[in-house]
Amino acid sequence: MREAAPEHTARGQELAGQAAAGDRRALARLLTAVENRSPVAEAALRELYPNAGRAHLVGITGPPGSGKSTLVAALIARVRAAGRSGAVIAVDPSSPITGAALLGDRVRMQAYARVLDVLIRSMAARGHTGGLASATVAAATVLDASGFDLILIETVGTGQSEVEVAAAADTTVVLEAPEMGDEVQAIKAGLLEVADIVVVNKGDRPGAQRTAAQLRAMLVAIAPRSGDDDRPRPKRPDVLLTTATTGDGVPELLALLDRHRGREHTGNDGARLARAEAQVWAIAGDRLRRRLHDERHRPATEATLQAVADHRLDPYAAADRLLAEAD
Amino acid sequence: MREAAPEHTARGQELAGQAAAGDRRALARLLTAVENRSPVAEAALRELYPNAGRAHLVGITGPPGSGKSTLVAALIARVRAAGRSGAVIAVDPSSPITGAALLGDRVRMQAYARVLDVLIRSMAARGHTGGLASATVAAATVLDASGFDLILIETVGTGQSEVEVAAAADTTVVLEAPEMGDEVQAIKAGLLEVADIVVVNKGDRPGAQRTAAQLRAMLVAIAPRSGDDDRPRPKRPDVLLTTATTGDGVPELLALLDRHRGREHTGNDGARLARAEAQVWAIAGDRLRRRLHDERHRPATEATLQAVADHRLDPYAAADRLLAEAD
Repeated sequence: MREAAPEHTARGQELAGQAAAGDRRALARLLTAVENRSPVAEAALRELYPNAGRAHLVGITGPPGSGKSTLVAALIARVRAAGRSGAVIAVDPSSPITGAALLGDRVRMQAYARVLDVLIRSMAARGHTGGLASATVAAATVLDASGFDLILIETVGTGQSEVEVAAAADTTVVLEAPEMGDEVQAIKAGLLEVADIVVVNKGDRPGAQRTAAQLRAMLVAIAPRSGDDDRPRPKRPDVLLTTATTGDGVPELLALLDRHRGREHTGNDGARLARAEAQVWAIAGDRLRRRLHDERHRPATEATLQAVADHRLDPYAAADRLLAEAD
Repeated sequence: MREAAPEHTARGQELAGQAAAGDRRALARLLTAVENRSPVAEAALRELYPNAGRAHLVGITGPPGSGKSTLVAALIARVRAAGRSGAVIAVDPSSPITGAALLGDRVRMQAYARVLDVLIRSMAARGHTGGLASATVAAATVLDASGFDLILIETVGTGQSEVEVAAAADTTVVLEAPEMGDEVQAIKAGLLEVADIVVVNKGDRPGAQRTAAQLRAMLVAIAPRSGDDDRPRPKRPDVLLTTATTGDGVPELLALLDRHRGREHTGNDGARLARAEAQVWAIAGDRLRRRLHDERHRPATEATLQAVADHRLDPYAAADRLLAEAD
């Protein structure tokens, strides 16, 4: 994200105020600004941040074909029928279209962090860390401060970044479908570790009960996600059957989500602290890179990086040199 | 990666010397050290770095079921039959086992960057950026300096991080299999953008020729990967049919790889510069975080991060505060 000039700051604050007041056009513009890492976004996010932190952020992830989008649509429909407001952020980092679907209205976005060379170039040119997770969290902050109560973050659960994005939510739902192929099985264990709730969708298919039983057995075997610290894992994830196409199981899933939200808000706030840390480090990294690509530092920075590419300087020495030059 | 104490530096330099001299046990230990981000690794990598830069790094990525591992095995067998040495780094960030297969000998590694909370905790505890790409590049550096001529980096091409890892290579091969499902089709465009060579594996299956034709048509439509700078894309990727199980097409693929290597080494070194940049930024970020988690800074850092988690401070203000405190 670029440093904001005064007119960008003013524009960002204006959009933030409008979005927080319920102006949907301003909200859509702000989301686009966040996605494009426009200089307007930083000012808006700073303005909105104190009003965020009230929404329930729910990550929904699962392999292709597990019916994520259908389930997300069913959940949002039910939430809205209950008079609450819901929004969806759909993330597909491997696709050229990283889509934000807001109230069922899909908005095409620029894909900005798909491949390493684009990423690197963007970092250099725009002080961009390429953190898909941080862009998603920023979009969630905008929606949160604009008064949305439930924010669903939908990702294809096949890669590390998607798992990271989903795990950045307050509550993470992992979706499976009955009778998936072998390589998908292999992916499951990693996904299950981030799950707060596991859903077997397409619950009317043969094998659904058996898949649920297998998943329960796998969950018994999995270590708590807290790893090596003393953060308590509240409880083993529930395993639930849904049929998103008919709506079966969707009310039960919503009830589980609300229960988990209550636990999160009263108990540990590990997800919120982790999310805050990730945001701060991403921004600090951006700022550092930007400083080193500033007019004043640019030639030295470029020479240092080229020396590493040529194997004349090792990357550790280069990092130390750049950090010393950053001041 | 932790800062090396003198005994770690000595041990790292010793292992580096042994690995470079052809000691396979030392090499395996060094790879484990890199994967575990042991304090020995930094010293070893610094020692080895000037001797690296000679190997051909080839990323091989594709969706589950496209036959990556079989093709990798066939390529390595052929390379070794020609008296050259080859190594494979197999990366699966979404699986609990991130495996490095060296000369066919699969070594279990710790999965260290699978989920965000692990990542964050590791960063805090060990100054870890969680860059799967940077760990892979470090492993490749060790193999390169140890005299391997062809280093294959195998990733499941379904997520952003895997694409990044593959795209960090000198040459990127994207694998497809005939007649994949719909969602896999959607993934293809993003993958194709990083391809230097496109391989339709399982070339003996019905539909293989049609898939190859479709891919050629898609490649015509795709913009050059250089994006907004003036780095020339050497040429449109070749599309090749292989049948890894029988070895059909494998010699042709190897010839294409060698030709691409020649082009890369004489022409633009964009991949090498991008790789160097990514390494340096990852290390600089590590160093910065480590500095801010040092004894001297720790209480202030933790208070700042908690204030962001509680929405009392916005993450931009927090990043600026931490950067000011880092000196």
